[in-house]
Parts: sequence; C-alpha cells; structure tokens
Amino acid sequence: MKLLDSVLERIRPSEEDRRRLEEVVSTLLERAREACEREGMGRPMLVGSVARGTWLKGEKDIDIFLLFPENLSREELEEVGLKVCREVARGEGRERYAEHPYLTFEFKGFEVDLVPCYEIPDPRRTKSAVDRSPHHQKYVSERLTPALRDQVLLLKQFMKGMGIYGAELKIHGFSGYLCELLVLYAGSFMELVRRASKWREGQVIDLEHHYPTEEEARRIFENQTLIVVDPVDAGRNVSASVSLQTFATFVRGCQDFLKNPREEFFFPKPVRKLKKAELARILRKRGTEVYCIIFRPPDVVPDVLYPQLRKTERALTAALSEAGHKVIRSDVWGEGRGAILLEIQPCLERIEIREGPPLGVDAENFVRSYLHSPLKLAGPFTDPAGRIVYELQSRAPSPQKVIRETLRQKHLLGKHVGEALQEGYRMVKSPGLPSLLDDPRLSPFLSEYFTKCFPWYR
Amino acid sequence: MKLLDSVLERIRPSEEDRRRLEEVVSTLLERAREACEREGMGRPMLVGSVARGTWLKGEKDIDIFLLFPENLSREELEEVGLKVCREVARGEGRERYAEHPYLTFEFKGFEVDLVPCYEIPDPRRTKSAVDRSPHHQKYVSERLTPALRDQVLLLKQFMKGMGIYGAELKIHGFSGYLCELLVLYAGSFMELVRRASKWREGQVIDLEHHYPTEEEARRIFENQTLIVVDPVDAGRNVSASVSLQTFATFVRGCQDFLKNPREEFFFPKPVRKLKKAELARILRKRGTEVYCIIFRPPDVVPDVLYPQLRKTERALTAALSEAGHKVIRSDVWGEGRGAILLEIQPCLERIEIREGPPLGVDAENFVRSYLHSPLKLAGPFTDPAGRIVYELQSRAPSPQKVIRETLRQKHLLGKHVGEALQEGYRMVKSPGLPSLLDDPRLSPFLSEYFTKCFPWYR
Repeated sequence: MKLLDSVLERIRPSEEDRRRLEEVVSTLLERAREACEREGMGRPMLVGSVARGTWLKGEKDIDIFLLFPENLSREELEEVGLKVCREVARGEGRERYAEHPYLTFEFKGFEVDLVPCYEIPDPRRTKSAVDRSPHHQKYVSERLTPALRDQVLLLKQFMKGMGIYGAELKIHGFSGYLCELLVLYAGSFMELVRRASKWREGQVIDLEHHYPTEEEARRIFENQTLIVVDPVDAGRNVSASVSLQTFATFVRGCQDFLKNPREEFFFPKPVRKLKKAELARILRKRGTEVYCIIFRPPDVVPDVLYPQLRKTERALTAALSEAGHKVIRSDVWGEGRGAILLEIQPCLERIEIREGPPLGVDAENFVRSYLHSPLKLAGPFTDPAGRIVYELQSRAPSPQKVIRETLRQKHLLGKHVGEALQEGYRMVKSPGLPSLLDDPRLSPFLSEYFTKCFPWYR
Repeated sequence: MKLLDSVLERIRPSEEDRRRLEEVVSTLLERAREACEREGMGRPMLVGSVARGTWLKGEKDIDIFLLFPENLSREELEEVGLKVCREVARGEGRERYAEHPYLTFEFKGFEVDLVPCYEIPDPRRTKSAVDRSPHHQKYVSERLTPALRDQVLLLKQFMKGMGIYGAELKIHGFSGYLCELLVLYAGSFMELVRRASKWREGQVIDLEHHYPTEEEARRIFENQTLIVVDPVDAGRNVSASVSLQTFATFVRGCQDFLKNPREEFFFPKPVRKLKKAELARILRKRGTEVYCIIFRPPDVVPDVLYPQLRKTERALTAALSEAGHKVIRSDVWGEGRGAILLEIQPCLERIEIREGPPLGVDAENFVRSYLHSPLKLAGPFTDPAGRIVYELQSRAPSPQKVIRETLRQKHLLGKHVGEALQEGYRMVKSPGLPSLLDDPRLSPFLSEYFTKCFPWYR
C-alpha cells in the first residue's frame, strides 16, 4: 500500500542514523566489556529495539544489560553491577530503582539505560523481570527478518499515533516487545490490523502453544483483556499492562483504518490548543460543573505518580457519586503540575424520600425519628407501593465539601500524591477554568480534555 | 376501653335516629311491595348497613333491592325492575347504570338506592354482583349479634378516620361488608387491630374454610394484597378493591393505635388549610418544580372518573421519567375541578453519554452518525470500561413540552378525561400555585398534597 510505503519513509532510520547509532553503541559496549573484565565477571548485551533494528527514527533510547553469574547474591549483584554501570557512564547519569537499581545517562544525544541482571539460561527460572530481557532479545532477533522489522515499525507508529504505545502506567498501552510479538503472530502490519479489528475482550495469542486451548489460557490469565503468552515464559502475559480502554481504542482504530486508511492514524493532528474564550464557550455548552484540583506534583517517576493520581481520582469520584453528584468524566495530569479534573452534574435535589421498614416490621422508631424533625417536609404516609415514607429536606453536601473532605483522608489517596496534597492545593471551579490556560504546564491537559476524541478524528 | 366507649357514644345512632329511619324504611318497603303486587312478581329486600344495624350516625344511605324470578330475561328484568323502581320513587330520582340499571332518589333526607336483581337461591350461580347482595345480607344478619354490631361501627369509623373506608375507585379502601366480615373473623374491634398490626401482603382470611390451606387461596387469588374469601362465594375476594397503599395504611394505623390509642384515629383533625404565603414557603423549601393541570371534569360518576384520572397521571409520570425528569410525587383530583398535580426534579443535564455498539460489533454507523453532528461535545473515544462513546448535547425536552405532548395522545388517557382535556386545560407551574388556593374547589386538594401525612398525625 502506497500509504504504508510513505509512512515507512518517514519512520525508518536513515543510513546516517544507523551509522551514528552503531558508533555510539560500540563505544558503550567496549567500555562495558572493559569494566567487566576489570571486575573479572559479567558481560554486556545490547537489548531492546536498537538491538533488533525496530527503533523508530528519532528514538534515542539505548538499552544495555549487564549479565552477571547466577551465583552472586542480590547485594553482590547490585554492588558490582552499579560499579560497572558507573564506570561506563564515567560519573554521569542518575541511579534509578525499578525492581533492581539501574543507571541512566545521556551520551552523545542518546538516552542510555544500563541495567545489571543475572544471566539465567532457563527463562522460566529468572529471578526478576529484568533477567527475562536477554531471552526476549534472543527470541525476537532469531525470528525477525528485515522485512518484518518494517512491519514492526509501522505497528509501533500506528500505536503511537493512537496514543496507546508504551507499557508505562500513564498509558497502559502496548510495549515494543508486544508489538514485535504481534507482528510475528500475524506476519504483517495489515494482517494484524485485519485480525485485531475482530478482537473482543479475552483474545488469546499463544505463539509457542504453551497452552492446549485458548480456554485454558483464559483460565490461567483470568479476566485479562488481552492475553499474549510470553514465548519464553508461559506464566507471563506480555499484554498484562494493556487496559480495557487502550485495547478498545486499538480495536476501534483497526476497524476504522480498514474502512478508510489515512495518514492521520500514524501522524494525527496535534491537540487543538484552546483559547480562553473558546473554553468558556465549551463550558457553557456542556452545562456541567468542573472542578480542577491543582498542586505541586511529588518528585517521583511517572510509573509511581500516575497510579497514585488515578487512586486519588477514584476516591474523589466515588465520594461524589456517594453524595448524589453524578460524575460525567474525570482525568488526571502529572507533568509540571499535578492536576485532577472532575466534571459533574451536581445534585440539586432538596427532597429525600426516606423509606421505613417493610410491612411486618414495626415502624415505631422510624415514625418517631422524623415526626418532629426540622427536616420533615411531609409524612409519614404510605406510597402507592405500600412503603411507609417521609419526605425530608436533603442534606447532600456540596461538591466542594465532598472534595475537601476526601482530600483530607490520606489513606484514600496515593502515598506521595497524598503527601503533596496535604501541603496544599488550589481548587478551581468551572467559570475560573479558562484562566488556567495561561499556565503552559496545564493548557495541554485542559485542551485535550475538552476536545477529547480518537486522535485520528482530530 | 374508655376511648372506645366514648367513640361509640358519638357514632351509634340514637333511638330517635333509629325510629325515624324505621319509619322511612317501612314506607318505602310498603310502596315496593304494592308495586310488585301490581306487576304480579318480585319482592323487596332491605340490605346494606341499615338492614344489619351497622350504619354510622349521620349516614343517610338506604339500599332496597327488588328480587325478581330467575326465569326473566335480562331485558325483562330491566324493564319491569325499573318500572317498579319508578313507582316507588314516584317520578323522583335518577336512573343510573352499574352492571344493571338502578334508581337513586332522595326521600325525607335519605339517599335511597333501588336496585332490581334476580332472586337466585344458590349464591355461586348468581348472574351478577348485585344478585349476591341478598346473600351477603342473609349471611351477615344471621351472625351479627348486637354487641358485634358496635364493633363494626368502631371499625368503620376507624377506617373512615384513616381515609380508607369505601370500596370506591377513588379510595380503593375497605367496604362496609368487608368491615363486617373482619369483625366476624376477629370477634372484636381490638382483636382485629391486634391481628392486623402483624399483617403482610398476601394475608388470607377464609371464614368458611373454602380452601384447604392459605397457600391454595393465595394461588387462586394470585398477587392480591389482602384475600378475604367471600363466605357465600368461594371464587370472590371481598377485598379485591383494597390497594396496597390502603392496606399498608391500615396495618400502620393498627400498629400505631396499639402503641398509643387516641381519638384522632377515629376523628382526625381536618387538613390544615394552607394560606398563600405558607404554600409559597413550602414550595421554596421543597425545591421541586410542580405542574398542575387544571380542566373542567367530565360529568361521570367518581368510579368512572378516578380510574381515568389515574390512567392519565400514569401516562404523564411515565413520559416525564422517560425524558429524564424525576417524578417525586403526583396526585389527582376530580371534585368540582379536574386536576393533575405533578411534582418533579427536572433533568438539568445537558450532556448525554451516547454509547456505541460493544466490541465485536462494527461501530462505523455509530461513528458516522455523530462525527459532524452539531450536538457533538466530544468523541468518539473509548471510556475506561472500553465502550465507544460520544458526549452529545442532550435534547431532553422540558417538562412542559413532555406534558403537552402526552396530553395530545388521547389513547394514553382515559376516555372522558381525555375528551375533557382536548377541550382545553390550564397548566400552572410552581410559582403560580399559591394563587390556586383562591379556588375553593382546588384548595382542599393542594392543602392535602403539601401537608400529606397519616390523618392521625395531622
């Protein structure tokens, strides 16, 4: 297809790109080999998209794993591993911590991750997720022909364009490794799109036939949206990070692309930046009440921050619903500023129908509770369904009050986000929202929220 | 109990009352006997509460049935029956029509009903409801001792006080015959109250043991709230007319009376007449929108009018709910003016979340339907539950519009009420409601609605 060819032109790295990358990689590998030699153990291994030739033009990530013998203790691995990393980085970079510590630094315009791990021959015996990467590397590189690599590039760009590329907890999307497996499964980008357009929840892909039937795989990975059995480890679902929302977006995108393939799937228009007057008009049209809670975000990586933001969002929407306010939509943001946006239809009901016990149960206490209550509007009487009721003045708390009280209950919020909120926050209500567009750290969030649609329809 | 004695004092007819009544009755019976003799067939029979000595002081109803031979055709019965009735009434009165025609007229301060029927020895073979009355008369008068008659008076007054006396379709309450059977069942007013305070839906009373078990009776009279098997006809539930609401009111009243017996159960305070300023204050406090539809009521008896008013009310509340407006309460009125009152919490939502087909079903048509719609606020996108949705401007019609359109659809309304509404109506919205208190035909309705509670708590 012409469209795919022209997309490939734009996303395939040039000979010059490749040459520059190879140069940088060989320098780094050389340094790593020397450092390992000095320690008398370990060996470096290039992994990830660079190693497999599936990196998109413009991507700057280089992943080098350092493989150490299994018989090292965890402490020894961390000590010697980080020492080698530091020697490679020559004092640059930052140590980070996922399951293990690792080191990340900038080198000649590239983002380099140096990750120590165990070298474990049997992938089912790995001690942690990082030990599995060398096996993924081996599995994919043995199977991916140059032609298939182009198909992976197309799929990755397709996912990127849809906003669902990346296993990070902010995105809950499709990882690079998952994209590679999907191409191996379908044989080409277009065939994958055709197949995926018919997917439903519980789709199973088991390249190595680890399970006798799809039902068996579904039993093991219960309630998971998409099940892609890891070829090197039957116990792992490579797409465990894919949320139902992301999955459904992908399936809908594939359906739409088949009907009308367009460049915009790969390269969507950017989100339209809303002007103040425009946002004010949108807010009037929507007729909702919007509350935006703004705070200084805690200094943690996105994979820690976003789950906490979502947890706080869930606590707020649950409390608002509980109080009778209908939540229309909500979203969170953590770049530069922390923000939680809640859009609601507030409950204006001032009458609460309070129902008493059923017939056969004495209603004396119920009757007595409200007979002289200042909240009583009418009653007691029996309604047409035979229930004894009072009509009372409703005491539904305002959305502001519900939000403030929920944000005080730290146990309902994520740890760091909860702490950040205790230090203070601003609550901005809808008519004040347009003024937030002045803050460039918030305007992309608000613009995206109020123009929300599939990127290929922007 | 002293309370019951003092109530009896007030409701038991005096010697003078009795004497006057007997005089009137014997005159009427005499006239009827003479008229029957002239026809060469038929005989009169006094039935109802007067015949059984269970009439409340002040009640003015005299029921005389004219029993004709079974072998008359229906036409012959109607002809000769009405002829006799006319002779008794001597040109006074109005012919009416229930199952059969009958005649009603005023005589010396009493309301006299003259009802022709067949004399059928076996009550299970009766041709219509009126043929059963002589059998009820026989059954009750053979069993009701003078002492029990007082108990019936107490029960009737108790029901009256609660607003649930009468089988009319306006009340859906307890008939006089039903009250008599309930006293025969329990042996006294107080014992009935004690038993009834424990009743639930599906209570069975089968004086003549027509059914081997209560379950069997429930199977025959499926889903009926209260089942009192007619002693003279096993196929009939004497309390079929009792609604769930009326039944529950009775049970709650019995529970309350046992705890705190008071005169107010028999003689409740009248409904407080609301002043305009007071109603305005109540409306503000309730915070609802009230719509009152006012029209000239059709000239039909209450038993025809009220079911039609209720049908119209149901059509309106269903249409309002359908349109997203929450109906808090509603009521109807048919005395002097026709009125339907609808109290609602209007839907202010201006966003409608329009959901597309599930995954596995192509969404092309859905996407295309709203992609360029002027109603679109956002979308399409997938929500966290994986559903493809649009956010659209809601087109929920206003309550006024829903009401007007419903009242145009005659097939949804009762026949006569529907015709009356086609001739015109006024719709008054809440802020204008207090001015309706100026109309004495409507003020009792509005006062009762906005102070609604069990009469004994007024």
